[in-house]
Amino acid sequence: MKIVELQDVPRKPMESPDVKGITKQVPVGVADGSPTMSMRVLTVEPGGFSPYHSHPWEHLNYILAGCGVMVNEAGDEHPISAGNFAFVKPDEKHQFRNTGAEPLQFICLVPTERE
Amino acid sequence: MKIVELQDVPRKPMESPDVKGITKQVPVGVADGSPTMSMRVLTVEPGGFSPYHSHPWEHLNYILAGCGVMVNEAGDEHPISAGNFAFVKPDEKHQFRNTGAEPLQFICLVPTERE
Repeated sequence: MKIVELQDVPRKPMESPDVKGITKQVPVGVADGSPTMSMRVLTVEPGGFSPYHSHPWEHLNYILAGCGVMVNEAGDEHPISAGNFAFVKPDEKHQFRNTGAEPLQFICLVPTERE
Repeated sequence: MKIVELQDVPRKPMESPDVKGITKQVPVGVADGSPTMSMRVLTVEPGGFSPYHSHPWEHLNYILAGCGVMVNEAGDEHPISAGNFAFVKPDEKHQFRNTGAEPLQFICLVPTERE
Protein backbone atom coordinates (compact mmCIF):
# COMPACT_ATOMS: atom_id res chain seq x y z
CA MET A 1 0.00 0.00 0.00
CA LYS A 2 1.26 3.46 -0.87
CA ILE A 3 -0.18 6.89 -0.06
CA VAL A 4 1.58 9.91 -1.52
CA GLU A 5 1.14 13.65 -2.10
CA LEU A 6 1.98 15.10 -5.48
CA GLN A 7 4.49 17.56 -4.01
CA ASP A 8 6.62 14.59 -2.90
CA VAL A 9 6.76 12.97 -6.37
CA PRO A 10 9.76 13.83 -8.60
CA ARG A 11 8.88 16.02 -11.59
CA LYS A 12 10.67 15.79 -14.93
CA PRO A 13 10.30 17.81 -18.12
CA MET A 14 8.91 15.94 -21.14
CA GLU A 15 11.61 16.36 -23.78
CA SER A 16 10.26 16.14 -27.30
CA PRO A 17 10.24 18.52 -30.28
CA ASP A 18 6.42 18.36 -30.46
CA VAL A 19 5.89 19.07 -26.74
CA LYS A 20 5.95 22.53 -25.16
CA GLY A 21 6.06 23.33 -21.46
CA ILE A 22 5.08 19.98 -19.89
CA THR A 23 6.44 18.28 -16.79
CA LYS A 24 5.58 14.71 -15.79
CA GLN A 25 5.21 12.98 -12.42
CA VAL A 26 4.34 9.34 -11.75
CA PRO A 27 2.65 9.05 -8.32
CA VAL A 28 1.81 5.38 -9.00
CA GLY A 29 3.37 3.18 -11.65
CA VAL A 30 5.88 0.53 -12.65
CA ALA A 31 8.28 1.30 -9.76
CA ASP A 32 5.47 0.53 -7.27
CA GLY A 33 4.75 -2.85 -8.84
CA SER A 34 1.58 -1.86 -10.69
CA PRO A 35 1.06 -4.66 -13.23
CA THR A 36 -1.57 -3.13 -15.55
CA MET A 37 -1.65 0.66 -15.44
CA SER A 38 0.41 3.73 -14.59
CA MET A 39 -0.95 6.99 -13.19
CA ARG A 40 0.97 9.99 -14.46
CA VAL A 41 0.33 13.65 -13.70
CA LEU A 42 1.13 16.13 -16.44
CA THR A 43 1.48 19.86 -15.74
CA VAL A 44 1.19 22.07 -18.82
CA GLU A 45 2.35 25.67 -18.55
CA PRO A 46 0.18 28.43 -20.10
CA GLY A 47 0.67 28.20 -23.87
CA GLY A 48 2.06 24.66 -23.59
CA PHE A 49 0.83 21.57 -25.42
CA SER A 50 1.24 17.82 -25.83
CA PRO A 51 1.98 16.22 -29.23
CA TYR A 52 -0.89 16.14 -31.73
CA HIS A 53 -0.60 12.41 -32.34
CA SER A 54 -2.20 8.99 -32.05
CA HIS A 55 -1.04 5.66 -30.61
CA PRO A 56 -2.56 2.22 -30.12
CA TRP A 57 -3.24 2.66 -26.39
CA GLU A 58 -5.87 4.68 -24.55
CA HIS A 59 -5.73 7.64 -22.13
CA LEU A 60 -7.98 8.00 -19.11
CA ASN A 61 -7.84 11.51 -17.68
CA TYR A 62 -8.98 13.61 -14.76
CA ILE A 63 -8.36 17.35 -14.82
CA LEU A 64 -6.89 18.47 -11.49
CA ALA A 65 -6.41 22.20 -12.13
CA GLY A 66 -6.57 24.88 -14.77
CA CYS A 67 -8.29 24.90 -18.12
CA GLY A 68 -7.51 24.28 -21.75
CA VAL A 69 -8.69 22.26 -24.73
CA MET A 70 -8.47 18.75 -26.10
CA VAL A 71 -8.06 18.70 -29.87
CA ASN A 72 -9.80 15.79 -31.55
CA GLU A 73 -9.14 13.83 -34.74
CA ALA A 74 -10.91 16.46 -36.89
CA GLY A 75 -8.88 19.29 -35.35
CA ASP A 76 -11.83 20.58 -33.28
CA GLU A 77 -11.05 22.03 -29.85
CA HIS A 78 -13.12 20.86 -26.87
CA PRO A 79 -12.84 22.80 -23.60
CA ILE A 80 -11.60 21.03 -20.46
CA SER A 81 -11.31 22.35 -16.92
CA ALA A 82 -10.71 21.17 -13.36
CA GLY A 83 -13.15 18.40 -12.41
CA ASN A 84 -13.67 16.99 -15.92
CA PHE A 85 -13.06 13.35 -16.74
CA ALA A 86 -11.83 12.53 -20.26
CA PHE A 87 -11.08 9.55 -22.45
CA VAL A 88 -9.00 9.16 -25.61
CA LYS A 89 -9.57 5.90 -27.48
CA PRO A 90 -6.72 3.82 -28.92
CA ASP A 91 -5.59 5.17 -32.31
CA GLU A 92 -7.56 8.42 -31.86
CA LYS A 93 -5.56 11.54 -32.75
CA HIS A 94 -5.49 14.00 -29.84
CA GLN A 95 -3.72 16.91 -28.21
CA PHE A 96 -3.93 18.73 -24.87
CA ARG A 97 -3.39 22.50 -24.98
CA ASN A 98 -3.29 24.96 -22.08
CA THR A 99 -5.29 27.97 -23.25
CA GLY A 100 -5.58 29.52 -19.77
CA ALA A 101 -3.42 31.77 -17.61
CA GLU A 102 -2.71 29.15 -14.93
CA PRO A 103 -1.00 25.73 -15.19
CA LEU A 104 -3.23 22.98 -16.63
CA GLN A 105 -2.68 19.86 -14.54
CA PHE A 106 -4.23 16.46 -15.21
CA ILE A 107 -4.02 12.79 -14.37
CA CYS A 108 -3.23 10.68 -17.45
CA LEU A 109 -3.51 6.91 -17.13
CA VAL A 110 -1.72 4.62 -19.57
CA PRO A 111 -0.93 0.90 -19.69
CA THR A 112 2.29 0.32 -17.69
CA GLU A 113 4.36 -0.48 -20.78
CA ARG A 114 3.67 3.10 -21.94
CA GLU A 115 4.50 4.84 -18.66
CA MET B 1 -12.88 11.29 -27.35
CA LYS B 2 -15.13 11.83 -24.36
CA ILE B 3 -15.26 14.68 -21.84
CA VAL B 4 -17.69 14.34 -18.95
CA GLU B 5 -18.58 15.87 -15.59
CA LEU B 6 -19.22 13.61 -12.63
CA GLN B 7 -22.70 15.03 -12.04
CA ASP B 8 -23.76 13.66 -15.47
CA VAL B 9 -22.59 10.09 -14.74
CA PRO B 10 -25.19 7.62 -13.35
CA ARG B 11 -24.63 6.66 -9.73
CA LYS B 12 -25.50 3.23 -8.31
CA PRO B 13 -25.29 1.85 -4.78
CA MET B 14 -22.74 -0.94 -4.22
CA GLU B 15 -24.82 -3.80 -2.89
CA SER B 16 -22.82 -6.21 -0.76
CA PRO B 17 -23.10 -7.39 2.85
CA ASP B 18 -19.54 -6.19 3.59
CA VAL B 19 -20.04 -2.70 2.09
CA LYS B 20 -21.70 0.21 3.90
CA GLY B 21 -22.83 3.49 2.35
CA ILE B 22 -21.00 3.46 -1.01
CA THR B 23 -22.21 4.57 -4.42
CA LYS B 24 -20.30 3.94 -7.65
CA GLN B 25 -19.99 5.89 -10.90
CA VAL B 26 -17.98 4.96 -14.00
CA PRO B 27 -17.01 8.16 -15.89
CA VAL B 28 -14.75 6.14 -18.23
CA GLY B 29 -14.81 2.40 -18.74
CA VAL B 30 -15.92 -0.62 -20.74
CA ALA B 31 -18.95 1.14 -22.28
CA ASP B 32 -16.61 3.77 -23.77
CA GLY B 33 -14.38 1.14 -25.39
CA SER B 34 -11.52 1.36 -22.90
CA PRO B 35 -9.51 -1.82 -23.54
CA THR B 36 -7.23 -1.94 -20.47
CA MET B 37 -8.59 0.03 -17.54
CA SER B 38 -11.76 1.44 -15.99
CA MET B 39 -12.02 4.64 -13.98
CA ARG B 40 -14.63 4.41 -11.25
CA VAL B 41 -15.56 7.02 -8.67
CA LEU B 42 -16.67 5.77 -5.28
CA THR B 43 -18.50 8.01 -2.81
CA VAL B 44 -18.47 6.77 0.78
CA GLU B 45 -20.90 8.30 3.25
CA PRO B 46 -19.66 9.23 6.75
CA GLY B 47 -19.27 5.96 8.66
CA GLY B 48 -19.27 3.94 5.43
CA PHE B 49 -16.64 1.44 4.30
CA SER B 50 -15.53 -0.87 1.49
CA PRO B 51 -14.95 -4.61 2.07
CA TYR B 52 -11.82 -5.55 4.02
CA HIS B 53 -10.57 -7.96 1.38
CA SER B 54 -7.90 -8.79 -1.19
CA HIS B 55 -8.00 -9.72 -4.87
CA PRO B 56 -5.44 -10.47 -7.59
CA TRP B 57 -5.74 -7.04 -9.27
CA GLU B 58 -4.46 -3.62 -8.23
CA HIS B 59 -6.17 -0.33 -7.32
CA LEU B 60 -4.84 3.07 -8.35
CA ASN B 61 -6.56 5.87 -6.45
CA TYR B 62 -6.88 9.62 -6.26
CA ILE B 63 -8.83 11.18 -3.39
CA LEU B 64 -11.24 13.81 -4.74
CA ALA B 65 -12.93 14.95 -1.51
CA GLY B 66 -13.27 14.22 2.18
CA CYS B 67 -11.06 12.23 4.49
CA GLY B 68 -10.80 8.76 5.93
CA VAL B 69 -8.40 5.87 6.31
CA MET B 70 -7.02 3.00 4.31
CA VAL B 71 -6.64 -0.15 6.37
CA ASN B 72 -3.63 -2.27 5.40
CA GLU B 73 -2.88 -5.98 5.59
CA ALA B 74 -1.83 -5.74 9.25
CA GLY B 75 -5.03 -3.89 10.18
CA ASP B 76 -3.24 -0.53 10.58
CA GLU B 77 -5.17 2.59 9.57
CA HIS B 78 -3.44 5.14 7.32
CA PRO B 79 -5.07 8.58 6.90
CA ILE B 80 -6.15 9.72 3.45
CA SER B 81 -7.59 13.05 2.36
CA ALA B 82 -8.41 15.06 -0.76
CA GLY B 83 -5.36 15.36 -3.02
CA ASN B 84 -3.67 12.10 -1.98
CA PHE B 85 -2.70 9.44 -4.50
CA ALA B 86 -2.81 5.82 -3.34
CA PHE B 87 -1.96 2.33 -4.57
CA VAL B 88 -3.07 -1.12 -3.46
CA LYS B 89 -0.97 -3.97 -4.83
CA PRO B 90 -2.51 -7.16 -6.20
CA ASP B 91 -3.36 -9.60 -3.38
CA GLU B 92 -2.88 -6.94 -0.70
CA LYS B 93 -5.66 -6.87 1.90
CA HIS B 94 -7.21 -3.39 2.13
CA GLN B 95 -10.24 -1.34 3.13
CA PHE B 96 -11.38 2.26 2.68
CA ARG B 97 -13.26 3.82 5.61
CA ASN B 98 -14.82 7.27 5.84
CA THR B 99 -13.90 8.56 9.30
CA GLY B 100 -14.91 12.17 8.56
CA ALA B 101 -18.13 14.18 8.65
CA GLU B 102 -18.32 14.76 4.87
CA PRO B 103 -18.55 12.24 2.01
CA LEU B 104 -15.23 10.59 1.10
CA GLN B 105 -14.97 10.51 -2.69
CA PHE B 106 -12.17 8.90 -4.67
CA ILE B 107 -11.16 7.68 -8.11
CA CYS B 108 -10.48 3.93 -8.13
CA LEU B 109 -8.89 2.44 -11.25
CA VAL B 110 -9.17 -1.26 -11.98
CA PRO B 111 -8.48 -3.47 -15.00
CA THR B 112 -11.57 -3.37 -17.27
CA GLU B 113 -12.56 -6.97 -16.52
CA ARG B 114 -13.03 -5.87 -12.87
CA GLU B 115 -15.09 -2.75 -13.55
